[in-house]
Amino acid sequence: MSYARNEMNTRPKSTIPVANRNQPPAERALIASIRQRAQSGLRTGLTLGIGDDCALFRPRRGEELALTTDLALAGRHFRLDWHQPESVGHRTLARGLSDLAAMGARPVAAFLSLGLPPELTVGQRGRASWADRFYDGLLGLAAKAGVPLGGGDLSQSPLVLADIVLVGAVPCGQAMLRSGARAGDLLYVTGQLGAAACGLRMLGSLAAAAQIHPPRVPKAQAELFAAHTHPQPRLAQGQRLRKLATAALDISDGLSTDLGHICNESGVHAVVHAERLPLAAQATLDDALHGGEDYELLFAAPAAVRMPRQIAGVAITRIGHFIKPRAGQAQMQIERNGALQPLERSGWQHFSAS
Amino acid sequence: MSYARNEMNTRPKSTIPVANRNQPPAERALIASIRQRAQSGLRTGLTLGIGDDCALFRPRRGEELALTTDLALAGRHFRLDWHQPESVGHRTLARGLSDLAAMGARPVAAFLSLGLPPELTVGQRGRASWADRFYDGLLGLAAKAGVPLGGGDLSQSPLVLADIVLVGAVPCGQAMLRSGARAGDLLYVTGQLGAAACGLRMLGSLAAAAQIHPPRVPKAQAELFAAHTHPQPRLAQGQRLRKLATAALDISDGLSTDLGHICNESGVHAVVHAERLPLAAQATLDDALHGGEDYELLFAAPAAVRMPRQIAGVAITRIGHFIKPRAGQAQMQIERNGALQPLERSGWQHFSAS
Repeated sequence: MSYARNEMNTRPKSTIPVANRNQPPAERALIASIRQRAQSGLRTGLTLGIGDDCALFRPRRGEELALTTDLALAGRHFRLDWHQPESVGHRTLARGLSDLAAMGARPVAAFLSLGLPPELTVGQRGRASWADRFYDGLLGLAAKAGVPLGGGDLSQSPLVLADIVLVGAVPCGQAMLRSGARAGDLLYVTGQLGAAACGLRMLGSLAAAAQIHPPRVPKAQAELFAAHTHPQPRLAQGQRLRKLATAALDISDGLSTDLGHICNESGVHAVVHAERLPLAAQATLDDALHGGEDYELLFAAPAAVRMPRQIAGVAITRIGHFIKPRAGQAQMQIERNGALQPLERSGWQHFSAS
Repeated sequence: MSYARNEMNTRPKSTIPVANRNQPPAERALIASIRQRAQSGLRTGLTLGIGDDCALFRPRRGEELALTTDLALAGRHFRLDWHQPESVGHRTLARGLSDLAAMGARPVAAFLSLGLPPELTVGQRGRASWADRFYDGLLGLAAKAGVPLGGGDLSQSPLVLADIVLVGAVPCGQAMLRSGARAGDLLYVTGQLGAAACGLRMLGSLAAAAQIHPPRVPKAQAELFAAHTHPQPRLAQGQRLRKLATAALDISDGLSTDLGHICNESGVHAVVHAERLPLAAQATLDDALHGGEDYELLFAAPAAVRMPRQIAGVAITRIGHFIKPRAGQAQMQIERNGALQPLERSGWQHFSAS
């Protein structure tokens, strides 16, 4: 863990000759800034943060810990010419927090390994650097979610990359798994579907027409892009659902793909009612089924459970149910205009033609 | 966490158009192989491994958890033309385990985010792929250290990169920090110093003369290279030292740099006795002081502590002591032939001319 060492960029644990071990002032300032901004009085269970070989944390009595890691690469998970650095930082943390939400865990600490070219740590003409703005986005969401940055690593890299680790805590044995759905359970989703796919499409159009990259999203339209540029992990909803749901995950790859994971792990089949899907404004049925990155929670609950219509301000919608697997029957089916047809796993596939 | 999703390489949570969502057989086989090999009956506290949104783990009663993350990039922390893939895998895990050792923690689980070009997942002419051989090295050390692979992420990447996360457990309040050294404490080190720098130098020479890259280390000479290619994290020593040491860290950046961290964090000065340094065969004093990547433990203990001469087969050597800071005095001094002179932080600097 190298934030502690305060030297990561130019004196790496490296086998490569290092031309100059003295750290450029911009990088030193960045690290000092991270340490300062990451230290917060948050009482999540993080007992030792940045500054030693390891961070230390303690679960509360009766809790176990959840850990998830997500790697994001420029050109693959985000684009430097499409996404503002604040959005990249926000999305990096949101991906990890959403995995915690899907287990019903409360966040304990985040750890970030960041690789980037040195020029992105230097601001131009008095403006904040790319790295500073990335941290603005990441730490803004961290503050909102009440999760401290407990450490990480920082390295010069020709490719911009961010690997986020989230640690959460959940009462022992109460984490929502993918494997708990049973035939007869109902299928629910939080929030709206397809908004992230719409936002991404709009961002692509904006970028294609823009003179300056990444393009600035007009303030009046920011809300239309927000599901893609600033997704909100459903932490409060996940923690509340622990007592109601039998299985859950977050929709990162598209409903059709992620529902398939629940079916696989739980050994059940599923029926989705097309008319019930809570489509976001401007979203198509395809966006909702296969769009991905909505970061809503998809979950199962017994029919006898009284499901609230919303949790912490976010709508809960019943969109289908689980059935016993039958030989020759598709794992997932979609009911539309009274007719059932197979639902294929097609998360992200529709982008192949774009 | 994407091992669970079994689809990471070609259907990323990505904003980039994907040409073909079907996973190449080589990648699918790799992921299946990782899942299979990572599942072990090890009872470290990992209660849920690869296969869901998060992994789950529980400390034993009275323990807290330690977490460290280390990012390694091709061309910076290792070289594809110098290092065998097994060595890259071993070193990736060793870096993280060494941080746990430095805190006195026992390993609970490892998590790996790996990025690599798709061609490195495909074996040539019936031979194992680069990725398979990387995992051979990583999982070989994992088995030896008794640490299960609890999850991670895998992505196509033009740059080979590996971000390793290690979770460990340590009795509450007993982790060895960098900040506990006091004036009067003695300074110790495990094992030998400078061997990794020697091994790296030899590997560079071997690579320069080789026809095939990375060069094969001749079996008869493997031991001479091993401190660099296959460093052994001092886990047993670290756990034993918890009851003896007041401060500790692992020598990753070179003794002179890492001792500086203890001095900084503990608010003390240090004197090193050059003649006492346990130089590895062929290592120079410079290698021992500034070489880095020895992954030995550097630690402080009160003079009254009876220090064993070795722990679990590894020598413990007293190499200096800590003193009160004095204005105008160097933070670190080295005594050589009866004379004291300032010891500069020069970890890795000597490679700048190579």
